Amino acid sequence: MNKNINIDTVKTPTIILNDEQAKKNLHRMADKAVSKNIRFRPHFKTHQSAEIGEWFRDVGVSEITVSSVSMAEFFADNGWKDILIAFPVNIREIESIRTLAERTHLGLLVDMEESIKRLGEEITNEIDIWIKIDTGMRRAGVWWENDVVVGKLIKLIDQFPELRLRGLLTHAGQTYHASSGNEVLDLYQKSNFRMNQLRDHLVEKGIRNLEVSVGDTPGCCLSDDLGLVDEIRPGNFLFFDAMMLQLGVCRPDEIAVCVACPIVSSYERRQEIVIYGGAVHLSKETIENSTPPVYGYAAFSPDSATWEINPANYVRSLSQEHGVVRLCEDEFKKARIGDLIYIIPVHSCLAAEALGKYVTLGGDMIKTRMEGVEKQVS
Amino acid sequence: MNKNINIDTVKTPTIILNDEQAKKNLHRMADKAVSKNIRFRPHFKTHQSAEIGEWFRDVGVSEITVSSVSMAEFFADNGWKDILIAFPVNIREIESIRTLAERTHLGLLVDMEESIKRLGEEITNEIDIWIKIDTGMRRAGVWWENDVVVGKLIKLIDQFPELRLRGLLTHAGQTYHASSGNEVLDLYQKSNFRMNQLRDHLVEKGIRNLEVSVGDTPGCCLSDDLGLVDEIRPGNFLFFDAMMLQLGVCRPDEIAVCVACPIVSSYERRQEIVIYGGAVHLSKETIENSTPPVYGYAAFSPDSATWEINPANYVRSLSQEHGVVRLCEDEFKKARIGDLIYIIPVHSCLAAEALGKYVTLGGDMIKTRMEGVEKQVS
Repeated sequence: MNKNINIDTVKTPTIILNDEQAKKNLHRMADKAVSKNIRFRPHFKTHQSAEIGEWFRDVGVSEITVSSVSMAEFFADNGWKDILIAFPVNIREIESIRTLAERTHLGLLVDMEESIKRLGEEITNEIDIWIKIDTGMRRAGVWWENDVVVGKLIKLIDQFPELRLRGLLTHAGQTYHASSGNEVLDLYQKSNFRMNQLRDHLVEKGIRNLEVSVGDTPGCCLSDDLGLVDEIRPGNFLFFDAMMLQLGVCRPDEIAVCVACPIVSSYERRQEIVIYGGAVHLSKETIENSTPPVYGYAAFSPDSATWEINPANYVRSLSQEHGVVRLCEDEFKKARIGDLIYIIPVHSCLAAEALGKYVTLGGDMIKTRMEGVEKQVS
Repeated sequence: MNKNINIDTVKTPTIILNDEQAKKNLHRMADKAVSKNIRFRPHFKTHQSAEIGEWFRDVGVSEITVSSVSMAEFFADNGWKDILIAFPVNIREIESIRTLAERTHLGLLVDMEESIKRLGEEITNEIDIWIKIDTGMRRAGVWWENDVVVGKLIKLIDQFPELRLRGLLTHAGQTYHASSGNEVLDLYQKSNFRMNQLRDHLVEKGIRNLEVSVGDTPGCCLSDDLGLVDEIRPGNFLFFDAMMLQLGVCRPDEIAVCVACPIVSSYERRQEIVIYGGAVHLSKETIENSTPPVYGYAAFSPDSATWEINPANYVRSLSQEHGVVRLCEDEFKKARIGDLIYIIPVHSCLAAEALGKYVTLGGDMIKTRMEGVEKQVS
């Protein structure tokens, strides 16, 4: 699927991937997990590419995480045999789930009795069940102190022979809102402590052998020992982005993606340029607590090894297709109509999903599942 | 391309289109333009559908607006013969532009000398040129008071035989940030006044016959007489959305789209539910100045005729695939696992682009250009 492309000839907003750096990021995380004897089940929603998936296989990964049934189907089609869908079961997709369980070792996430019952009644192959726990993010999951509720869910799971209870799972996404690396680490450790407290309470009730699965990139990057857990599921660490930079989770040269955007207009009085690159390419994700909102940082080379990020060079606003980039005086002078500028996205997973393909620094094209995929309606 | 679908059986996030209401919205805008003898050149970035385009043809529309070269190619392929690309020319796409100009009457937007020169040197068929003017949005365009700069651009355009100067164009997007309908109207009128001031100054310099093209949905909806302009280019008015509702531009029953999202979890203490419907489906657009941010409103029916929007039922946060919806006590009780809830998106154009298809209230499927389209890299 490769095709040699000269980055300088890119015509429309395109993700440029520093594949060597991404592989370094991957090796570091894989090595850390191996050294701590913790299972590494990376989240593939970040890249959504069969080809990039092979990089993971090369470092010994055989179990993966995805965030939708269709993503699980895509990776099952590409030879992955152990797939966890880390999203609360959507029982409207029960038929697809049943079919998927026939051809791959499937793990599912539950926190509702209704979903467990439907799975138990309709799934015909054995599947792994993880109970989703909320340790502070306040998105999905049973609150970690509700061991009574968790106990009830476990009892219900035990009634169905095809449902095999694997353990407790959380996503400590509260780390994304931390104001420093130390706070990230603190939140990560607190989340792991809460998971283990819950596990201990359940052991007291006679429920044993529960695994603990955790997974945020900030915590998994900044924690040296990863804590008392059985499995980690980070995804974003592969690419990083402006959000991770801001959090102190990565250095600029560790960021492995940027979006090449053509410069279409420039306004000297405002020291601003307009780029072809808008909400449909970069997403409207902003840097936490940025006022005015920051939708990305600007660089003049696609190679992160050369980046010295100056937060004064930033994407100030995004419309559907337009971006407005504010630049310092020196950088403004460099920006010529028709040139490319390289935007470091706030959230690389969303930019990857929106843009659907990568071009590496060496000019190879790497496809994702979004390319040419039919949008589902059924 | 139609296929009868029972909305109740939708499994994944899907745009539901109240096609009758959208047609009413279309008729009203078309009638207003006709009654004022102003050209109606609707923006097709809102729907991006060949089939919906035919509704416009049925009310006499033959000239359209798009926001990218690829969108122009799509509508040219679907029989549109007069297409304005309302985005500053991206000279990296000059070859596609030249080819497009061979098969359709093409209009382009410029505000940079560099772009005019490249067009003049490389375009081989006659094209319309509009000069982009900034009347207050501070995105793209020459500032309206810079008649000297505009005069220079016009002189440059006149040097190239294939470039036919049509007029001055603005997008008064500042109306989207207004705090009331009256302020919208005020900003729209002020923008039109500025455009006409500039036109008058240019007439004094001997530059005559310039048309004025304007186009924001808020202004075009709330202004009864549309002002002293030659052309309007609104797009969003077809669907409306939570942003237009908030601005006082439409009533709830005039909103023609919502996103059907499966309910996957619910948490009584928080009075919140988790839906399958995240940033990749709804976009992270928020209601202007909402604190905490509002990413959409929730309804329990797909039919806007029944909606009584309570802003206390709102999307509180969006991750890649998850949405967290906060509900009032009564509404929370109605929300059952596995049911659909209907999210009124903040910006319908972005949700339409992300989801790529519509299902009408009657169960017909309507495709867009995003369905199965190859993401460009070249």
